[in-house]
Amino acid sequence: MASDGQPVTLTAVTVSTIADLGVRAKAASRLLATTSTADKDRALLAAADALVASTDVILAANAVDVERAEAGGVSSTVIDRLRLDAGRVQAMAGGLRQVAALPDPVGEVLDGWVRPNGLRITRVRVPLGVVAIIYENRPNVTSDAAALCLKSGNAAFLRGSSGAITSNTAIAGVLREAYQSVGLPADALVLVEETSHDAAVAFMRLRDSIDVLIPRGGPSLIASILEHATVPYVIDGDGNCHVYVDESADLEMAARIVTNAKTQRPSVCNAAETLLVHKAVAQAFLADVDTMLPGVELVADPPTLGMLPAGSASEATEDDWSREFLDLKMAVKVVGSLDDAIDHIARHGSGHSEAIVTSSLDAADRFTREVDAAAVLVNASTRFVDGEEFGFGAEIGISTQKLHARGPMGLRELTTAKYVVRGEGQTRG
Amino acid sequence: MASDGQPVTLTAVTVSTIADLGVRAKAASRLLATTSTADKDRALLAAADALVASTDVILAANAVDVERAEAGGVSSTVIDRLRLDAGRVQAMAGGLRQVAALPDPVGEVLDGWVRPNGLRITRVRVPLGVVAIIYENRPNVTSDAAALCLKSGNAAFLRGSSGAITSNTAIAGVLREAYQSVGLPADALVLVEETSHDAAVAFMRLRDSIDVLIPRGGPSLIASILEHATVPYVIDGDGNCHVYVDESADLEMAARIVTNAKTQRPSVCNAAETLLVHKAVAQAFLADVDTMLPGVELVADPPTLGMLPAGSASEATEDDWSREFLDLKMAVKVVGSLDDAIDHIARHGSGHSEAIVTSSLDAADRFTREVDAAAVLVNASTRFVDGEEFGFGAEIGISTQKLHARGPMGLRELTTAKYVVRGEGQTRG
Repeated sequence: MASDGQPVTLTAVTVSTIADLGVRAKAASRLLATTSTADKDRALLAAADALVASTDVILAANAVDVERAEAGGVSSTVIDRLRLDAGRVQAMAGGLRQVAALPDPVGEVLDGWVRPNGLRITRVRVPLGVVAIIYENRPNVTSDAAALCLKSGNAAFLRGSSGAITSNTAIAGVLREAYQSVGLPADALVLVEETSHDAAVAFMRLRDSIDVLIPRGGPSLIASILEHATVPYVIDGDGNCHVYVDESADLEMAARIVTNAKTQRPSVCNAAETLLVHKAVAQAFLADVDTMLPGVELVADPPTLGMLPAGSASEATEDDWSREFLDLKMAVKVVGSLDDAIDHIARHGSGHSEAIVTSSLDAADRFTREVDAAAVLVNASTRFVDGEEFGFGAEIGISTQKLHARGPMGLRELTTAKYVVRGEGQTRG
Repeated sequence: MASDGQPVTLTAVTVSTIADLGVRAKAASRLLATTSTADKDRALLAAADALVASTDVILAANAVDVERAEAGGVSSTVIDRLRLDAGRVQAMAGGLRQVAALPDPVGEVLDGWVRPNGLRITRVRVPLGVVAIIYENRPNVTSDAAALCLKSGNAAFLRGSSGAITSNTAIAGVLREAYQSVGLPADALVLVEETSHDAAVAFMRLRDSIDVLIPRGGPSLIASILEHATVPYVIDGDGNCHVYVDESADLEMAARIVTNAKTQRPSVCNAAETLLVHKAVAQAFLADVDTMLPGVELVADPPTLGMLPAGSASEATEDDWSREFLDLKMAVKVVGSLDDAIDHIARHGSGHSEAIVTSSLDAADRFTREVDAAAVLVNASTRFVDGEEFGFGAEIGISTQKLHARGPMGLRELTTAKYVVRGEGQTRG
C-alpha cells in the first residue's frame, strides 16, 4: 500500500522498462561472477581516468541539477551534497582507485571438510549477483557504489533520486563506457533513469533480477521498502548510540570520549545521542558538562536535571530517549547501576553502536556480552564504527539488522557463499 | 494487500495479543543470549525426558487433531505427517538429545585484528535473538525447531498450523515446563495459539520482537510472506535441481547418480527434477532409461523424444522445465554442450542444488564456478545437500536465498555477529 493507504497501481510501461533493465544487469552479473581480479581492477582504473577526463561533462550535467534544486528552493545542506566541483570529481576517481587496490573477496574458501563417505565439501565466497541500491541526492554514490559492486563481482543496479538524475546519468555513462573499453560489460552498471515513485516500487519487487537491495536514505525510504519490497534487502538504519560512563571510569577519558562521540561530527549515524552516567560519579562528571559539550543542547530527566549545572539542560520528553538527533543535542540520564544502563539501552537503542567507559573488567565484560548492538565499544568513541576506521578500505553502508551483515559493510558483505561438493559417484542410502 | 488485492485489516485484539507474545519472547531472548552451554544442554535433556514421560498426554492431544483432519477429509499423506505415535515421540526426544550433543556456536570469535590506533576489534558469534518459524502440519517441528533455537541461544517464537494446534500446544507446554524446571525461562519457547490468517500476518510484521522469520511451507506461504512481512526472513524455497551428464561422464556412475537423485526420495527439495545429457553420450545413456528410472514418468523436448526408447516419454510443456515435480516425474533434455547445460540451469534452476557427472577437470571447474546455486556437486547425488549429510547434526531448513544463509541451515545459521571494540580512550580525529 502507498503511504495514503491505497494499493499502489503500477503502470505496465514502468514495470516492463524496469524489468528489462533488471534482465540486463542479471546477464552482466553472470559474466562478472567469473571475471578475474586483474580485469576488474583494470576497469576500475579506466573508470577513474575517464571520470577525471570527463570532468567538464560531469560538471555541466551537475549544474543542471543544482540549478533545478536552487529554483525549487531546496535547502543549502542538500544543495551542498548535490554540488560537484573538480575536486569532488577527483575524489570520486580516487575512490575508484582505492577500491581497485583492495583485496578481492571472491573465491575465498571459508570452510572445508571431508564427510565419512568421502564427499569433499568446501564453502566458497561468491558474488551476490545483482546489487541494487536506492539512494538520495549524492551523485558520488553512483561511482562509489559501482566500484564496490564491481570489485566484489556484482552488477550494480542503481536508482538515485530525481534531484540528481542528470549528474547520475552523466557519471554512469562515463563508467559504463570505461568498463566497455577494457572488455567488461557496460551493464555492470545499470542506472534506472525513471525516478518516479512507481519506478521505485517496481524496482523493489524485481525478485527475478535483484539479489540484494541496499537502501541509503531516511526513514520514509525504509518504511517504503518494508511495505513494498519483495527482494531481499539490508537495512542501513538509524543510530541511536549511547555512551555509558561507569562508576569506575577514568573521568578525564570519559569526557574526551563523550566530547568526541557527540561533537566531532554530530550529523552521522555513529555519533552519540544519549549520555548515561552512573550515579556514583554523576556529580563530579556532570559538573563540567559545559566544557565537555560546548554548544550542545542538553535534555535530561528530572533527577538528572538536579545534578546538572543550573540552566544547562531542559527536561527530556519520553520521545527524546529514542531519537537520533543528528545534531548538537544530547539526552543525559543518571542511572543507578550497570544493569540500569544496559536496560535503558535495550529499551531505547537502535542496535548500532554502544560504548562503555570503565576501568572494571567485570563491567566491560558484562556490557560487551549483554548489550545487543552491531558494535559494542569499551573505552573508545562510537565514531570509530565505520568501514574505513575498521580497516575495510571502503563501505557501502552500516547495517543495523542482524541478517547477513551487521555493522559496517565492506566488500565482504557484498558476497554470499556457495557449497562445492566433490565426490566419486556417491549416492545416498 | 491480501491476495484478493484488498488491504488487510487486522483486528486490534489479534495484533495486541501477538505483540504481547513477542514481547515475552524478546525478554526471554535477552536471558538466553548469555545462558551457558551447560544450562542450555540441561534444558534440552530435561525436555527430552519430559516428552517421553508425557507420551500419553501428547498422543491424546494429537488424536484430537487427527480426528478433526479425518472428519475434514484431509489427504492421507497430510494425516500421516500429522499423526504421532510413541515411536515418533521417542524420535522427537532423540532429536532434542542430539541437539544437546552438538557444539554451541555462540561465542565463536570469527575474526579479530588490531587497528593502527591500537583499537582491538573482534567479531564474535552471537544469537539472533527471537527466531520466528511459521510451519505446517508437522507437530515434530515444534520440538525440532525449539531445540535448535535454544541451543543457539535464541528464543523460539512458533506459529504452527491450525490443523496441528492441539498437538503443538501439548508439546510446547511440555517443553516450556521442562525449561522452567531447570531454571530457564519458559518463554524460551512461545507458541502462537491463534492460527487465523490475520494472526499470521500480524506475526510477520512484529519488527520490534522478531529478529528472523523462517517459513517452512509451500508457495502460498512464501507468497504471503513476500507480500506482508516486514520482519527479516530467510526463504526455504523450491528445489528445481538438475543432473547434467557430461560427454566425458562415466555412464555407469551417471546412471547410479540419476537413479538416486530422482528416485531415492522424490518428494523432497533436493531430489532431481531435470536430467540434462550431452548429445555425444545421449544415445548410449538414454537407451537404458527404463532401467535407470523405473516407474518414473518422463517428459522431454521433441529432439530428445527421438533419442529415448519409443513410448518411454511424452512431450514436455515449457512449464515443465521450471517445475518442482516432487514426484516420480522427470524432465529430460539433450544439450549440445556444457555451455548449453549451464545456460539451461541459469534459466530454469531455482538455485538449490545442481550436479554434474564428468571425468573432465575443466568441465567440473567450469560447472562449479559458473552455476549459481546454493550447492554445486561433482559426481555425487543432489540428495546429499542437507544439514545431516553435510555434518551439521540437524537443520532448520535449506535456504535458497543468498542473504545471510545459503543452503542447509544448522545452528551456525541461527546466529549473527557482533563487533567488540576495545580501546584505551581513543577518540576520532
